[in-house]
Amino acid sequence: MTAKPSFLEDPSDTRGAIMRATYLALCKHGYADLTIQRIADEFPKSKSLLYHHYDGKDDLLLDFLGFMLEQQKERIPAKQSSGSSRDHLNAIFDRIFVTPIPDDYRDFSRAMVELRAQAAHDEKYRNHFTRSDEFFRGLLTRVIQSGIDEGTFRDVDAEEVAEFLLLIVTGAMTKRVTTNNDAIETARDELDAYVRRRLLADEE
Amino acid sequence: MTAKPSFLEDPSDTRGAIMRATYLALCKHGYADLTIQRIADEFPKSKSLLYHHYDGKDDLLLDFLGFMLEQQKERIPAKQSSGSSRDHLNAIFDRIFVTPIPDDYRDFSRAMVELRAQAAHDEKYRNHFTRSDEFFRGLLTRVIQSGIDEGTFRDVDAEEVAEFLLLIVTGAMTKRVTTNNDAIETARDELDAYVRRRLLADEE
Repeated sequence: MTAKPSFLEDPSDTRGAIMRATYLALCKHGYADLTIQRIADEFPKSKSLLYHHYDGKDDLLLDFLGFMLEQQKERIPAKQSSGSSRDHLNAIFDRIFVTPIPDDYRDFSRAMVELRAQAAHDEKYRNHFTRSDEFFRGLLTRVIQSGIDEGTFRDVDAEEVAEFLLLIVTGAMTKRVTTNNDAIETARDELDAYVRRRLLADEE
Repeated sequence: MTAKPSFLEDPSDTRGAIMRATYLALCKHGYADLTIQRIADEFPKSKSLLYHHYDGKDDLLLDFLGFMLEQQKERIPAKQSSGSSRDHLNAIFDRIFVTPIPDDYRDFSRAMVELRAQAAHDEKYRNHFTRSDEFFRGLLTRVIQSGIDEGTFRDVDAEEVAEFLLLIVTGAMTKRVTTNNDAIETARDELDAYVRRRLLADEE
């Protein structure tokens, strides 16, 4: 959900170094062509550490997905004390709808679309993406509810609107890397129009 | 984009029979575990026909995707002469947001999410999904433009709204099969709210 995370620069421990190697190998090879060996190629320490800690590629990738979710949680823009909930929502969208998309973020987004597709037939991946979506739905629900409480937003069903915003994000990320037409700016414009018409209390 | 197509009941020629076998094998095994042999297992004629016509699994699947797109085009609800463009848009959404999802449609939707994910690293798949999205964007643009012309809809940028609707559909189909939380009814309710607020000319 966010651009380049800081653990890529300077992993603080062995797990961080494994996560960094997984990120780099995933960006380079994608899911289908990824092997533990290719992750080991990006790993500066002994590769026996990888085999020792993980039962295989999917075991490692599921740990990686959990790690990335924690990274993303830490990097969510906080609400500015001087700003409204609408500004807060915009800051979150700015983090997601990076445009133009940097090459490494595109590569990572491609890999994420492939990893999410594993959830179609693998319960462990499905459990991860259920948890991940629940976290982001909760986050967006709180931002919308806070806007309702402060009088910026209409009295909508905050959770329903949050679920809808999450669909739009999922759809935008998926379309962005699976078609030749990066319509992310159009999507963002229309998302802003939706927020204006659906949420803003002083807009009729 | 639609529920069970008629070629599954009674394929009219060899290609139809191959497409039927591919559909059944894809629903049963998913993309990753699919092989030409598993497609052949669903095919009543000589399996040499499959090897004769196709260079491999992906060659066959790309032909299958093109075939399914043509099938979907034929099954799009036409505008009723007595109805408005809003009714037409609703009829199209009803076709997409089938709820509760029948088992075979869920299996097919899972496979479609996996096939779309191939587009992240395979240009041929990306070209297909670009074409497919272009078709549906064009369809939705025409429905919206027709609603503007008849005075049902506001004077919006029809193509931008169509692109946004397509994002929502892509997001909903993806989330539906990659999480344990089928929020499709919530998505549909909120989509209706969006259409009402964003498109309807007599709604302020």
